[in-house]
Order: sequence, then C-alpha cells, then structure tokens
Amino acid sequence: MKFTAQQIADALHGTIEGNKEVSVSSLSKIEEGSPGTLSFLANPKYTAHIYNTRASIVIVNNDFVAEKEIAATLVRVKDAYSAFADLLEMYQQSKGKPSGISDRAYIAPSATIGKDVYIAEFVSVGEHTVIGNNTLLYPNTTIGNNCKIGNNTTIFAGVKIYEDCVIGNKCTLHAGVVIGADGFGFAPQQDKNYQKVPQIGNVIIEDNVEIGANTCIDRATLGSTIIKKGAIIDNLVQIAHNVEIGENTAVAAQTGISGSTKFGSNCILAGQTGFAGHLNIANGTIVTAQSGVGRNIKDENTIYEGSPAFNHKDFQKSYIHFRRLDGLVKRVNELEHKLKKQSSE
Amino acid sequence: MKFTAQQIADALHGTIEGNKEVSVSSLSKIEEGSPGTLSFLANPKYTAHIYNTRASIVIVNNDFVAEKEIAATLVRVKDAYSAFADLLEMYQQSKGKPSGISDRAYIAPSATIGKDVYIAEFVSVGEHTVIGNNTLLYPNTTIGNNCKIGNNTTIFAGVKIYEDCVIGNKCTLHAGVVIGADGFGFAPQQDKNYQKVPQIGNVIIEDNVEIGANTCIDRATLGSTIIKKGAIIDNLVQIAHNVEIGENTAVAAQTGISGSTKFGSNCILAGQTGFAGHLNIANGTIVTAQSGVGRNIKDENTIYEGSPAFNHKDFQKSYIHFRRLDGLVKRVNELEHKLKKQSSE
Amino acid sequence: MKFTAQQIADALHGTIEGNKEVSVSSLSKIEEGSPGTLSFLANPKYTAHIYNTRASIVIVNNDFVAEKEIAATLVRVKDAYSAFADLLEMYQQSKGKPSGISDRAYIAPSATIGKDVYIAEFVSVGEHTVIGNNTLLYPNTTIGNNCKIGNNTTIFAGVKIYEDCVIGNKCTLHAGVVIGADGFGFAPQQDKNYQKVPQIGNVIIEDNVEIGANTCIDRATLGSTIIKKGAIIDNLVQIAHNVEIGENTAVAAQTGISGSTKFGSNCILAGQTGFAGHLNIANGTIVTAQSGVGRNIKDENTIYEGSPAFNHKDFQKSYIHFRRLDGLVKRVNELEHKLKKQSSE
Repeated sequence: MKFTAQQIADALHGTIEGNKEVSVSSLSKIEEGSPGTLSFLANPKYTAHIYNTRASIVIVNNDFVAEKEIAATLVRVKDAYSAFADLLEMYQQSKGKPSGISDRAYIAPSATIGKDVYIAEFVSVGEHTVIGNNTLLYPNTTIGNNCKIGNNTTIFAGVKIYEDCVIGNKCTLHAGVVIGADGFGFAPQQDKNYQKVPQIGNVIIEDNVEIGANTCIDRATLGSTIIKKGAIIDNLVQIAHNVEIGENTAVAAQTGISGSTKFGSNCILAGQTGFAGHLNIANGTIVTAQSGVGRNIKDENTIYEGSPAFNHKDFQKSYIHFRRLDGLVKRVNELEHKLKKQSSE
Repeated sequence: MKFTAQQIADALHGTIEGNKEVSVSSLSKIEEGSPGTLSFLANPKYTAHIYNTRASIVIVNNDFVAEKEIAATLVRVKDAYSAFADLLEMYQQSKGKPSGISDRAYIAPSATIGKDVYIAEFVSVGEHTVIGNNTLLYPNTTIGNNCKIGNNTTIFAGVKIYEDCVIGNKCTLHAGVVIGADGFGFAPQQDKNYQKVPQIGNVIIEDNVEIGANTCIDRATLGSTIIKKGAIIDNLVQIAHNVEIGENTAVAAQTGISGSTKFGSNCILAGQTGFAGHLNIANGTIVTAQSGVGRNIKDENTIYEGSPAFNHKDFQKSYIHFRRLDGLVKRVNELEHKLKKQSSE
Repeated sequence: MKFTAQQIADALHGTIEGNKEVSVSSLSKIEEGSPGTLSFLANPKYTAHIYNTRASIVIVNNDFVAEKEIAATLVRVKDAYSAFADLLEMYQQSKGKPSGISDRAYIAPSATIGKDVYIAEFVSVGEHTVIGNNTLLYPNTTIGNNCKIGNNTTIFAGVKIYEDCVIGNKCTLHAGVVIGADGFGFAPQQDKNYQKVPQIGNVIIEDNVEIGANTCIDRATLGSTIIKKGAIIDNLVQIAHNVEIGENTAVAAQTGISGSTKFGSNCILAGQTGFAGHLNIANGTIVTAQSGVGRNIKDENTIYEGSPAFNHKDFQKSYIHFRRLDGLVKRVNELEHKLKKQSSE
C-alpha cells in the first residue's frame, strides 16, 4: 500500500511543507531513511539527521524550526512522537492477531473461556480460572487456579501466573513474566534458621497495564500487591509483596521495590533504581537511574538522585565537588601549609 | 471455621488481654483489619494502627506496651511475627496440595519417580533423573538428564534445571528459576575473540532452601556451585559459577555474585548488592542495599555499605559530608580568601 | 579413559616438568585436586594452591615461576586457561548431543526444519520459521512466526523468541532468554496516560554469540536491535530497543542498556552497570561494576567508574578522599578555628 503526504497529513490532522504528491510505503528511522519511507523527528538529539535523511516524508512537531534546507516533505503535527505511534499502531493492526484454541493446550474443566480468544499450544489454564474475551495466551504460558484474566489482554509466551491473581482488561504481559510468586517473608528464629511466612494474598493488576519481559511481581502476604491502571513496567523489574504502583507510574528496567512500599500516580522510576520497604512515595516523584530511596517522599513532583537518594540538584552539586575532591584536598593541604608557615614566622 | 481468642492463645501459647470470647474467621493486615479478622503487630512502623484497627484480635509481642486504649483483644506471645507465620501456615495447609501425574507430562523412560508426587502438564523430566516423594512439579517445568530432586520439594511453573544438578529436600523453587546454566567463562584470545570455557560442573542445592522467581544459579566450571541448607534467595538474583552460599544466608532481590565467591553462614545481602569474584565473605556479614563488595571480608558480623563498600558507619559519616560538600567547598573558598587578604595586608 | 602427562603435553603443544608417566582420568579445581586428576593455574589468586594440590598434573603458563617444590607434574603452555578450555571442550564433546524431533513438539506446517536437529517436547515453532542444521531446541521453548535460527545453534529450555527475529550460527541461548519483546516505548499524553508506541522492528543476533539465562533483548521500534558476532552476554541482562552491541563485546550479569545506545567492538561491561539511552560508546571501553554511564564515550580503550561514571583513575582518587571525608572536614574545622583565633588575637 502507498500513501501520499496529503493522505498522511489528513490522517494525522497535520499540515504539509513540500511536495504533497510524494508517496511512501513503509516506515524508517530518520538516520536510516530511504526513498519511499516515512520517518519522524521528536528527540532533539536526532535533529541533525533531518537535513540529509533520504526518507521521503518526515513528521515533525509544529514548533520545529528548520535551520537548513530539507529535501524531505514535512508533515507538521502537534506531537510528532504520538502521531508516529498512531501510524505504527495502524501498521501493526493491519497484520492481524492469532486466534483459536490449540488442542495441545490444557484447559481445566472448571475454567471459563471467553469469546474470540487465542490459546496456544502448551498453555495450561487452572481450575476455576476465567479468561476474558479477545484475550491472547501465547505458548508455554501457565495460569494457575482461581485466576481472572480480563478482556483484550495479551499474555506472551512462557508467562507464569500463580493462583488467585487478577489481571485487568487491555493489559500486556511480556514473555517470562512471573505474577504471584511468594513474597520474600521469613521470620528469623533464635537458632538462626528462617521460618517461612506463608504468603496467602494475591496480585491485582488493573486495566491498561504493560509489564516487561521476565519481570516479577510477588503476591501479598495478606491482601493484595496492586498495580494500578495505566502503569507501565519494563523488563526484569522486581516488585515485592504488598507493594502498590500508582496510576500511570512508569518503572524502567531492573528496578527493585521492597515489600509494602506504595507509590502515588505519575511517578517515573528510572532504570536500576531501588526502594526500601514500607515507604510512601508522593505523586509525580522522579528518581534518576541507579538511585536508591530509603525514606518516605512527601513532596510531590520532586526529583531524587544518589544512593541513598536526596534532592537531585543537591546531589549534582555534591557530585561535581566529588569529582574534584582531589583538588579540594590539595587546597586544604596548601592552606595548612601556609598557616603553619605563618605561625612559624 | 471460627476460632475464639482463647483457642488462638492456646494454640500459640500466648496470653489474652481483653474479651476472650471474641471470635475470628480470617486474617488481615492491621491497617486494613475488619471485624471477625485476626491481625498482628511486629514492625514498629505499624504501631499507630493498633489503636484504631477494626480487627477483632491482634497478636503482639510480650513486651508491647500500649500507650492508648485498644479496642481489639490482644494475644501476647514471645514473637508475634513467628506466631502469625504459624497461623498462616495452618491456613495454607488447610487448602491442600495438588497431586497426580498428568498424561501431558513427559517423563523419560529411565527416570525414577517417587510416591505421591504432582507432575503437571508440559513438564519434562530427563533421562536417569530421580524425583523424590511428595515433590510437586508445576506446569511447563523442564528438568534435564541425571538430576536428583529430593522429597517434599516444590518446583513452580516454568523452572528450568540443567543436567546433573541436585536439589535437596523441602526446597522451594519459584517460577522461572534457572539452575545450572553455563557459568560465564571465556578465555580471551589474541585476535580478541573469546574462546568458550565449557562448564562441566553442576549445582548442588541443599535442604530447606528457597529460591525466588527468575533467579539464576550457574553450574560450576568444575566441581559444584553450592547453596547450603537453610539459605533463602529472593527474585532475579544472579549466582555465578562455583559460588558457595552459606547456611541460613539471606540474599535479597537482584543481587549479583560473581564467580567462585564464597559466603559464610548467616550473612544478609540486601537488594541489588554486587560481589566481585573469588572473594571470601565472613559469617554474619551484612551488606546494605546497592552496595558493591570488591574485597575479602574477614571480620565476622560486620556491616558494609557503598560501592565499593567499606565499613557501614564510616560510609554513613562520609555520605553526610558528601551531601554537604557544597558547603565545605564554600568554607575552603572563604579560608583561601581570608588568608589571601591577610597576606596582602 | 586415562591420559599420561606426555599425551596431554602433546595434545596442548606443551612441555612437561616432572613425572611424564603419571596419568589422569578426570579434571579438578586446583584447590580441590585429588590424585588422578588434572588441574590448571591461571588466576594468580590461586597460586598458593599449587604447592599443596593433590592433583597429579597441573597446566601452567610458560612464564610461571615456582617458588617452592611442587609435587604435581607441570605441563607448561602459552595460555593455561585456554589450554584447559580446550581439554574441557574435548571432555564435553565426548558426551554427545541430544537429537531427534519429539512428537510432543509443535512445528507449524509452514516451518522449515534443517538436518540433524533436536527439537524437544513442548517446543513450539511458528509459521514460516526456519531452523538450521544441527540446531538444538530444548523443552518448553517458544519460537514465533517468521524467525530464522542458524546452524549449530543451541537454544536451551524455556527460551522465548518473538516473531521476525533472526539468530545466527553457532549461537548459544541459555534457559529463559527472551528475544524480541516490545521495546519500552510510550508517548506521554496530556492527560498523563501513556500511549503505547508499537514496536515493529526485530532483533538480529549474529554468529557465535552467547546469551545468558533470563536475559532480555527487546525488538527495535523500527529497524533492528543488533548483537554483533562474537559478543558474550551474561545472565539477567537488559538490552533495550535499537541497541547495538559490538563485536566481541562482553556484557556481565544484570547490566542494563537503554534504548538506541550503540557499543563499539571489544568493550567490557562489568556486572550491574547501566547505560542511558542514545549513547555512542567507543571501541574497547571498559566500565567497572555498578557504574552508570550517562554520556557518549569517544576515546577508545578507556576505563570508566562511578555513577555517573567518569575516568576510572580519577574516580578512584576521589573515592579515597570520600572515604576520608570526615578527616578532611575536621581539618577544615581546625583551619577555621586557627584563623579565627589569629584574627581575634
């Protein structure tokens, strides 16, 4: 299929700059664009590429100001990244979805299966579990007893969901995700053995949540570990028992959250961050990569950095001095030397 | 089922304060307690909740001193957390265990299977492998050739155990665990290629070990990677070839241990800690979250912090100064200014 | 089978010191060697063990200088570690490989399967996927549609490969690896919801690549995430969308690399390191454990440390001062005190 710049501009409610008649048949990255492809510019780091990209059409933000001539036709929109996401979505939907129930799947007799599902080979669905309509279960996935999976949810290959857990509508769980393993709860005994504390709660994942590959979300000791609607969680993240992740909170890869810590809405946790247990973290908190938070955060919309973390700007000041610490020590040496000399004069 | 405060106190060898006749039928968290439920107070962070919990009974430590009136009936015990763990254990055992061997499992002809096992659908058991009595293998688990799994061990869904590995009695392996993948051993060559060093050892996991979801324990190059009895390991932990984890050592989530490092007993490794290879770490060592240990630790029962880690108290002193480093630099500026002024006077 | 020192020296092109007639039948670690075994010494940390090892033969580097008498027969070679790897390889190859296609596997009708493959039970191979000759697929592995897996590649149990991905020849993917899950791309909306950016690219893994257990390599948004030939990647590593890993680059466990970052050849990323997105990292860069890189690295063959990372030697200088920061503060206090005293005199 081919689309002209005019057709694309119409679909995205954008305006055209350049040749309206040029047409494209596929998508490309701006730095690798070739004739007949459509690309986009959103991240300023890639601005230099727009002046020599071979892509035929580039979607840009309305406020983009060209500093040189551009060969490509531009389509200006309010938000180039979102507009491009829309195009990708159209492209992906055109590919269709798998469907049907494999006779190599195992579905417990008491399970309830919705309409238009895909249940692939080697999927195991436990007793009394409910699978919603239009939901996709890829191969080698295990869903335990008494689970409830919503509608229009995609569960990729090899996901493991323990008994009693609840997954909402329009969720995506990537391959290897583990939902509902036991929280890490042990009572130390006088003989230094650990007594296991059984974990009888569950995990509740609300609607529109995405969970990355091999991420683990433990069941609650009592009650529920909760991932609220719209949260997005990357790969290899550890979420311990009784944690709550707020609405539209983003958790980047390899972050670890200890037991019972609760996040407000719209937080952003960068990669490899860590959180102690039993904390409350305010709405809109941002934590920079590799930082570790050991205390409650009460002020909303603040940025934290360091391990242990404190205010981001203060950390950066301290860190600049840390890098120059050798110079500071030399200055103190010098001061001592001068003062000693003075006093001996 | 309902239990009176008296029955619970008798079961836990505790003493009652308040209404002995009140009865409960389920368990709750103290901050979410409702009438008819039993809760507990062990972590001092939650003490405030005991004065307004709606739980009917709360288990507390013998030395708990109430500062206000409490509506709930108290049951005083030596260790409230362990007593509550006992109750959770009774509750969980009342739910029963799965059993039977699925005809959708694959069991190699030469494998030996114990009594009263559960082997779920899509489990693969390799040649000459031995599965002990009362052991549970959940769906989509793969156990290679020549493995030995003990009695009363639970292996959750999607666990992968490579050939020749040994798992003890009463162990729990959570979903997605990988036991016995190759250690990361490569010999750099002059042409900058890496030559793979085959890993022909195995992994031995002793009795009463718990291993968290998606944790990886690599096989030894030669000999064995060993997890000693009573060790508890959280999710997404990396344990490299030839490592030894001591008895009753606790390893929190996302910790990484490089090859051939050996831990004594009763160590506590907090979340996201890292350890270089070929180290010896003394009994009772504690390492705080996100710290990185690069040297042997010879003194027992000490606490380490930082990356690279050193004595915990020294780290904390240094870190307080780090946070105030901007102030220190200003003070040095001021000193230099004064001294310059002096000398020019 | 038994081998004499002479036979081993001949096989490794080495020279013998000591009894040429002694023979061995298995391999051992030098610190655990027993009579009849062959060991090696490459890491200087283990040198002390050579003087009392009970191994009958020890392979050492040509430049090893004994400081005491050694009971074992020595075989001197250019590179003891590589020579031992050769022996391990011979040992492992003598064990043979699994073969045959299980009738409990699912192979889509349109898939193309090479010669002499092993496809174990509960493996799922998608439509139009091509599996090369001599390639091994262990149980419970899922390979999506339109994938291409090369020749002589080993894919261990429970690996999940999403559609459209390409794996080269002579690669090893360890258990639980996830290839081709969606990159973590979301466009923030004005209402604070995230709009998913569909990820329509793929992953390309070139020849001779090893990937550790439970590691995740995300598909590209557009184009390809690329792991170049000879790269070695350890367990639990996160590689985001559109990343490129250079030839013979080594990535240790639990490292995380954000989207679109590109590495040159022969880099070494130690354990638990982190990389921001959209970076270019020069050939031969070394990053020490737990460090975090936030900027491009342009100079080749340099070492970085810290979070955020800077030059390794500078970091070490600063860190020594950090450890002694309490002393520095006391010295500044003292200087201020002296100066105040002076000025009040």
